[in-house]
Amino acid sequence: MTIEEGKRYGLDRLINFSDAVIAIAITLLVLEIRLPEMAPDLGAAELTNEILVLWPKYLGYLVSFWVIGLYWMAHHRIFRLINDYDRRLLTLNLAFLFTVAFMPFPTSVLFDYAGVFIVVLLYAGTLTLTGLSLVAIWLYATKDHRLVDPQLDESMIHNQTRSLLVGPGVFLLSIIVAIFNPDLAMYAWLLQIPAYFLTRPPSGPMPDF
Amino acid sequence: MTIEEGKRYGLDRLINFSDAVIAIAITLLVLEIRLPEMAPDLGAAELTNEILVLWPKYLGYLVSFWVIGLYWMAHHRIFRLINDYDRRLLTLNLAFLFTVAFMPFPTSVLFDYAGVFIVVLLYAGTLTLTGLSLVAIWLYATKDHRLVDPQLDESMIHNQTRSLLVGPGVFLLSIIVAIFNPDLAMYAWLLQIPAYFLTRPPSGPMPDF
Amino acid sequence: MTIEEGKRYGLDRLINFSDAVIAIAITLLVLEIRLPEMAPDLGAAELTNEILVLWPKYLGYLVSFWVIGLYWMAHHRIFRLINDYDRRLLTLNLAFLFTVAFMPFPTSVLFDYAGVFIVVLLYAGTLTLTGLSLVAIWLYATKDHRLVDPQLDESMIHNQTRSLLVGPGVFLLSIIVAIFNPDLAMYAWLLQIPAYFLTRPPSGPMPDF
Amino acid sequence: MTIEEGKRYGLDRLINFSDAVIAIAITLLVLEIRLPEMAPDLGAAELTNEILVLWPKYLGYLVSFWVIGLYWMAHHRIFRLINDYDRRLLTLNLAFLFTVAFMPFPTSVLFDYAGVFIVVLLYAGTLTLTGLSLVAIWLYATKDHRLVDPQLDESMIHNQTRSLLVGPGVFLLSIIVAIFNPDLAMYAWLLQIPAYFLTRPPSGPMPDF
Repeated sequence: MTIEEGKRYGLDRLINFSDAVIAIAITLLVLEIRLPEMAPDLGAAELTNEILVLWPKYLGYLVSFWVIGLYWMAHHRIFRLINDYDRRLLTLNLAFLFTVAFMPFPTSVLFDYAGVFIVVLLYAGTLTLTGLSLVAIWLYATKDHRLVDPQLDESMIHNQTRSLLVGPGVFLLSIIVAIFNPDLAMYAWLLQIPAYFLTRPPSGPMPDF
Repeated sequence: MTIEEGKRYGLDRLINFSDAVIAIAITLLVLEIRLPEMAPDLGAAELTNEILVLWPKYLGYLVSFWVIGLYWMAHHRIFRLINDYDRRLLTLNLAFLFTVAFMPFPTSVLFDYAGVFIVVLLYAGTLTLTGLSLVAIWLYATKDHRLVDPQLDESMIHNQTRSLLVGPGVFLLSIIVAIFNPDLAMYAWLLQIPAYFLTRPPSGPMPDF
Repeated sequence: MTIEEGKRYGLDRLINFSDAVIAIAITLLVLEIRLPEMAPDLGAAELTNEILVLWPKYLGYLVSFWVIGLYWMAHHRIFRLINDYDRRLLTLNLAFLFTVAFMPFPTSVLFDYAGVFIVVLLYAGTLTLTGLSLVAIWLYATKDHRLVDPQLDESMIHNQTRSLLVGPGVFLLSIIVAIFNPDLAMYAWLLQIPAYFLTRPPSGPMPDF
Repeated sequence: MTIEEGKRYGLDRLINFSDAVIAIAITLLVLEIRLPEMAPDLGAAELTNEILVLWPKYLGYLVSFWVIGLYWMAHHRIFRLINDYDRRLLTLNLAFLFTVAFMPFPTSVLFDYAGVFIVVLLYAGTLTLTGLSLVAIWLYATKDHRLVDPQLDESMIHNQTRSLLVGPGVFLLSIIVAIFNPDLAMYAWLLQIPAYFLTRPPSGPMPDF
């Protein structure tokens, strides 16, 4: 195994491990959706009702699945450009995984207690840290082209950084809003959608991935 | 890393991530099977009874494991023919995973409340979406041979499409049946078996995978 | 991608998916070990007692982890010799995973109700099927050297088969014993240990893996 | 597949399987954090209180995630130097995974009953075994350069060994301290931090991974 292959090899393992953690966190979300203990002879109408009143859980699953999914796509995007690693990168990546693996807990309380400050803080706070740890990984890797191709374009690096900042930026903003109005804060998350389309990095020299 | 290797590399990561999510969803199904709290000095006859009355859970595990397993095989089949990716493919694939990861919930109520419309709707509805998202992935990837080999035979593409439509077609049909008769709807799922054998794609230029 | 690479590629995916399912099943076992709800001001002596009375759970974790671990090693061993796949192999492998993923349930009742026939039947029955599905995979793959190297030695094939039969053989035997004496049946499982050492395949032309 | 490729291939599978088990164990930790059943009309102040009193669970998640994360990094480090395997290495590695997969249980009781001897014993005992199994893997692989590059430097091997001994050494020490003072034992774990920086292996001929 050459030095070059060794780098690739160690990096692949970092990526596989990350994918496993993200995949598990995203799949554990569904365990929060469960019916209460019910009488086995429950009528159709009551059962329908029991299933429908779980809507805050469905919404929580929907939102968290896609937020984690988008972070996974960002992780996928930047790690196609990173081609080496060191101990600090492993540590920063563990910090990223630490916040992702925590997500099932904030999700479990999110929409059941939607208008409460602590709930918004817990949820948006976790996702702010998730996003900032991705930014930290990217800034660390690209500083003086430390762990990326020396040829990698400065403007492409900046575009990626800007794109990575959108997520945590919106979540941080929503925490500030939540101090005054926790309900409004949750609607602020919808800003992710236009922000995402405005800032996603252009294709550049690589295919649109 | 050449452009070609980069594509393969990014696609492999998409596939590994998908496999991890599917593997977790399929394995979490078993967590629905659990005995109630019981007295530790329970007699053999009562314990046997407690284990046997769980049959709706065993049946749910059996059916869902194999349905997800068949979808995994279909995913495996089409991704052997897809050789590139873009942001939209990642998103469509996340939609597929979103429905697969949701499966433990519909499975948990399936056979305990077998004859109820909402339960059939929840279960067959989820699996209809799972199947349609696979169809969407395939149509998107093969449109003008966008993400497949330019040599790939048109008739092979159509055979795959037809084969992919069987699953969601039967589940969608069963929802319509369920409006009139929820019990009959569940038997309609058995149509999967003959339909599968009638429509599976012929081997073509590749080995019978 | 050549035909040869395509085979390897599809086979690797089968293996990665299997590893993920086995890894999850083996790790979910620990979720069965949990303390009952306790008063937060519990004294040290009572807490110690609560932790010690869980011994049937620890024993269940220990036994099931190692049994699944040994089956994983057997899967690892035979799939180093299999170099192609088809739809039937995927299906047989799903049957293997189906029984492995089921293991957390039989484990959860195993030592709490150790002397009861149905419990032995459930546990040893599942593991008999796990072992037999591995045998089926191996016999299918090696029939007329269908999915293995044409050079693969007949005697090596037979050694592997014999080695694979030990596990399910002992578990099947224990079910027969359990009809007469469920307690004795569990001790019969200890036969795995000498049987394993007597039948493990010799190293042959490959390193001792 | 050459002998050389076969070795790499079998080793990669061992590593992927290990990563999956570690990833699941690290992610299951979060399932221990859950709010009790609450009235749906709970006030903001009570909810905030309910979330804050869970601090022993957060701390448990934090500590266990990072301890397992560091062990993963050590596993990553030594397996970049191991280039072959045999049945005994697979078995030692299963022993390592056995202790890692057990971690969600000791974590679940750790900070709720922080000052109790049995809790410290359970937690530090498990982590001592985790660390010692890594040491055993390393000593087994490097004995007479059995499963590593024949060129691998003796002093590098010794540096790795010393570095691997820090974790289990501190946890073992803390158990001895806990006999006299369980509270003090937990503070002893903080010794990991300076010890880690004093003993981490120098970069040597490979990049600082």
